[in-house]
Amino acid sequence: MAIFRLGHVEVRTPDLELCAAYYTEVLGLREVARDENHVYLKGWDEQDHHSLMLTGANRYGLEHVAFKTESINDLEDYETTLERYGCTVERIAAGTELGQGDAIRFDSPTGHTMEIYAQMEKVGNGLPLFNPPPMPMDLVGIAPPRLDHCLLTTENVPDAARFMSEVLGFRLTEQLVTNEGYQLIVFFERSRQPHDIAFTRGANGGLHHFAYWLDSWSEVGRAADILRMNGIDIDVGPTRHGITRGHTIYFFDPVGNRNEVFTGGYKTDTDWETITWTEDQLGKALFYYENRVIDSFVSIYT
Amino acid sequence: MAIFRLGHVEVRTPDLELCAAYYTEVLGLREVARDENHVYLKGWDEQDHHSLMLTGANRYGLEHVAFKTESINDLEDYETTLERYGCTVERIAAGTELGQGDAIRFDSPTGHTMEIYAQMEKVGNGLPLFNPPPMPMDLVGIAPPRLDHCLLTTENVPDAARFMSEVLGFRLTEQLVTNEGYQLIVFFERSRQPHDIAFTRGANGGLHHFAYWLDSWSEVGRAADILRMNGIDIDVGPTRHGITRGHTIYFFDPVGNRNEVFTGGYKTDTDWETITWTEDQLGKALFYYENRVIDSFVSIYT
Amino acid sequence: MAIFRLGHVEVRTPDLELCAAYYTEVLGLREVARDENHVYLKGWDEQDHHSLMLTGANRYGLEHVAFKTESINDLEDYETTLERYGCTVERIAAGTELGQGDAIRFDSPTGHTMEIYAQMEKVGNGLPLFNPPPMPMDLVGIAPPRLDHCLLTTENVPDAARFMSEVLGFRLTEQLVTNEGYQLIVFFERSRQPHDIAFTRGANGGLHHFAYWLDSWSEVGRAADILRMNGIDIDVGPTRHGITRGHTIYFFDPVGNRNEVFTGGYKTDTDWETITWTEDQLGKALFYYENRVIDSFVSIYT
Amino acid sequence: MAIFRLGHVEVRTPDLELCAAYYTEVLGLREVARDENHVYLKGWDEQDHHSLMLTGANRYGLEHVAFKTESINDLEDYETTLERYGCTVERIAAGTELGQGDAIRFDSPTGHTMEIYAQMEKVGNGLPLFNPPPMPMDLVGIAPPRLDHCLLTTENVPDAARFMSEVLGFRLTEQLVTNEGYQLIVFFERSRQPHDIAFTRGANGGLHHFAYWLDSWSEVGRAADILRMNGIDIDVGPTRHGITRGHTIYFFDPVGNRNEVFTGGYKTDTDWETITWTEDQLGKALFYYENRVIDSFVSIYT
Repeated sequence: MAIFRLGHVEVRTPDLELCAAYYTEVLGLREVARDENHVYLKGWDEQDHHSLMLTGANRYGLEHVAFKTESINDLEDYETTLERYGCTVERIAAGTELGQGDAIRFDSPTGHTMEIYAQMEKVGNGLPLFNPPPMPMDLVGIAPPRLDHCLLTTENVPDAARFMSEVLGFRLTEQLVTNEGYQLIVFFERSRQPHDIAFTRGANGGLHHFAYWLDSWSEVGRAADILRMNGIDIDVGPTRHGITRGHTIYFFDPVGNRNEVFTGGYKTDTDWETITWTEDQLGKALFYYENRVIDSFVSIYT
Repeated sequence: MAIFRLGHVEVRTPDLELCAAYYTEVLGLREVARDENHVYLKGWDEQDHHSLMLTGANRYGLEHVAFKTESINDLEDYETTLERYGCTVERIAAGTELGQGDAIRFDSPTGHTMEIYAQMEKVGNGLPLFNPPPMPMDLVGIAPPRLDHCLLTTENVPDAARFMSEVLGFRLTEQLVTNEGYQLIVFFERSRQPHDIAFTRGANGGLHHFAYWLDSWSEVGRAADILRMNGIDIDVGPTRHGITRGHTIYFFDPVGNRNEVFTGGYKTDTDWETITWTEDQLGKALFYYENRVIDSFVSIYT
Repeated sequence: MAIFRLGHVEVRTPDLELCAAYYTEVLGLREVARDENHVYLKGWDEQDHHSLMLTGANRYGLEHVAFKTESINDLEDYETTLERYGCTVERIAAGTELGQGDAIRFDSPTGHTMEIYAQMEKVGNGLPLFNPPPMPMDLVGIAPPRLDHCLLTTENVPDAARFMSEVLGFRLTEQLVTNEGYQLIVFFERSRQPHDIAFTRGANGGLHHFAYWLDSWSEVGRAADILRMNGIDIDVGPTRHGITRGHTIYFFDPVGNRNEVFTGGYKTDTDWETITWTEDQLGKALFYYENRVIDSFVSIYT
Repeated sequence: MAIFRLGHVEVRTPDLELCAAYYTEVLGLREVARDENHVYLKGWDEQDHHSLMLTGANRYGLEHVAFKTESINDLEDYETTLERYGCTVERIAAGTELGQGDAIRFDSPTGHTMEIYAQMEKVGNGLPLFNPPPMPMDLVGIAPPRLDHCLLTTENVPDAARFMSEVLGFRLTEQLVTNEGYQLIVFFERSRQPHDIAFTRGANGGLHHFAYWLDSWSEVGRAADILRMNGIDIDVGPTRHGITRGHTIYFFDPVGNRNEVFTGGYKTDTDWETITWTEDQLGKALFYYENRVIDSFVSIYT
């Protein structure tokens, strides 16, 4: 059993066309496929079919998150472990989600629908596997190479932490705790980066944001220009996180789902020791330069 | 069995004092410990006791490379696998190498002495585990956060490739091959980066270079300034590799061991598909901007 | 008559020692000299004796700003022109201000004490004039190379604009105006950069901030780290200005004088055409990423 | 008399179409106009009609360089001064060169045709003069904002230096001299940057290169990628100059005229003191990282 990446997120939108335009032209993802009610998108350097699925719906928010695991045989193991933990697990046939192989779907105790899959159609990154140049020449907008992580909300963060580590095998990289040691925000990884997924206190099933990776602070500055020249409001940034040490900008897609571009941070190997932040340092933990809590950031999620 | 990182390299030097000064003041590593004939060093963000061990000797070159594995129980499994492959494996008691736990040592078919260990004293990165700032304020010189990879030489590259993948479980990220498909350079990873270790054609047991990580192209430019202001000759760079897409500078320590600072490149997950370069593109594969083979780079190793 | 640079600013401080420590260790200026009640400082790449003069006083704020002109003969011409405009002009003997040659001092209609001088002792930038390296190796803190500009407050901005252009010969690079075309903020240059000095509405004689130059957006990010790791609050930034297009951080010295580090922007030649911003775009004009007025920024000055 | 900028260069090409494609699509200049035998181009942030004029001819090389001066009245003064120095000066009527006002043309003692003009049609930088965004959104290729400088060859460098300073009023920023103090390369400015024009030893009338400005080392790295992905050979770089401290890449247009992209360096005010390099440091003076003379760079010009 070895989940190795946050594979993709499925996000709802009441305006599929508008969001498709925004995600391709401003954020600069590649549109891979679409059907009547879905648009499938990916960062340019991703080989798999999609990392973002937009789904038409009458409200915004998260439909599901999906993790990719190493082997098709892992599915049965995860199924067993999940059921033993009390989750209801459902088998999803290959092709139910475009490009995706066999999968399992379950309701996480955090109130989110999650999937695990091992196979997805490889559509390539637009570069040859022989003597490739370092990047494509037809990039548009911010053009992040890949999905990085997401932050979800849940009523009981310690429960979420236990589930993520004991059931799904994630490693806790950082946490923010009350003076009594109660976990308020927890950060988990399976791909040797500061976080693949994180949970903060809020309604069960909520999405705070999902983030695409950028390669440098210079790219973060360029992203801010592109956002503002396209009339997209910036929620916070460019700034640095205390937690993860990464550089960041937060902003919203046209229907209100929060996006992030993220870079930097450390490499997390399996011998990583968890870093702990205390609640009185929440401002610094979130935004190292501002050193204060930003209201919209902690109050708005979808 | 899960090696997850190139743990450290041990390099010989006929002038231990001079090298200790260079590696701490110019490259900007932290000196952790020293005894009569060894100096132990680490990048500032490494938690483990050392990633570089300088050993006094009457010639330069590589003494051994060591991989860190997840569990102490892995050692026995690797021992079995290695002996089945025909390697002579030796147990090394904890503390034989300062700070290191139990380990196994073996002669690789590539002519290199290699070690695998699971435990090393944690000396920390100079930052607290509670509410840490993003970096220390007393960095000196280039100050890379961590060891990244090494490139070794061997007479039979395909044999090296087979050994690394079949015995040690590394994944082949890129390779450069002749028109007939014979492997000339091979790149392997276990830590989700473009390479942890690579092999190129040359004498068995040789060291081409070892590399420390930098965080950005801006840091690479700053490294070039620091090197030259300290009178260190640059072998190649700042430039970009075709292979790995990374940015780089090559240079030599005062006794002739080749160093690299490296940044960028892609993230390699376990579903990575190998990229292949053909020999006629060697120049571009090595140095994407120069687009040509640089004599010193392909002829000098230690 | 050719003023070519904002030469230096003199700023008051109720705590001279504390400010001297801050400006040398955090901002990273060089201390050149001090006497009982003054500390003289410069950016590392400035050749002249000082660009900042700290003066002990029982309150903070601006004591005077000084412009450097090309020739000692310009002083008499400026004297004539200023007196014709109604200013009281005083001759200041060489050495009255440490390192400075003959000068004239006058009260600007904006309520500020201003000086013009042509000669200042050259103390050098720490690099030889023969075969110099690109920078010194002993820089500390943010370490800006040079003073860039200052923003002063005045009750009557159009009057300030007329004075700066007609009497002192500055060129108007940008302006922010009401819907009726009344000037609220004006930006002037004599050194081919976006601004050497600017005026915004406020009390006569006030100082909004003075700014030191940095070489890049990467340096701006590094400055934010240094400020926060030293516990200095950031007022605004890192962000981009609409006006000047420059990148910026605002912050305060320990007694409350606002500092800025600034980079980027365009080159202004003498055929520059003034850019005009309208009051309804004030937020964007000031902070292009935030796209809104930041209260502390428009309400606090000294 | 106040030349304030290198206004434009006119360069010959045996293949006007090919060069027009290269300069617009790879270097990323804007094509402003063309007639049967000329293509007029500009950097995106230049307001004037053109900074580069491509002229069809049966060989490559420089046709003329032109300086912009502040006032139309300067032309007569320059005419007098030039004729007194022994130059033959010709009046060029407005419109002879597309977009250019009245001008004077003369043969410099360095063997180059030079022009001085005060007026050129303003075509704008693609941004409004009211509330402009920081940059256009339709940039292509490297997309430098403006022309920076050129390096010409001449048999007698000291004569060139005397002419540039005494007749045209340029300031000598740096020079490289033999052990006997004979000038081999000289750098001159009128626009407060490290150089607007420079001369090195070679045939009279020769062009070594002309350079466009980039905003940062990050942009220099991006330029290297764009050049190589378009199959353009890089002559030298990315690297840093000792002289000017600037960062640079040299490369050739499709017919053999050498181009440069350049950034960084210091600000030169009118109180600048000349920096002198000695011939034995030629390698470091030219290429600070390589620390050696690069044959193609010193042997090839047009």
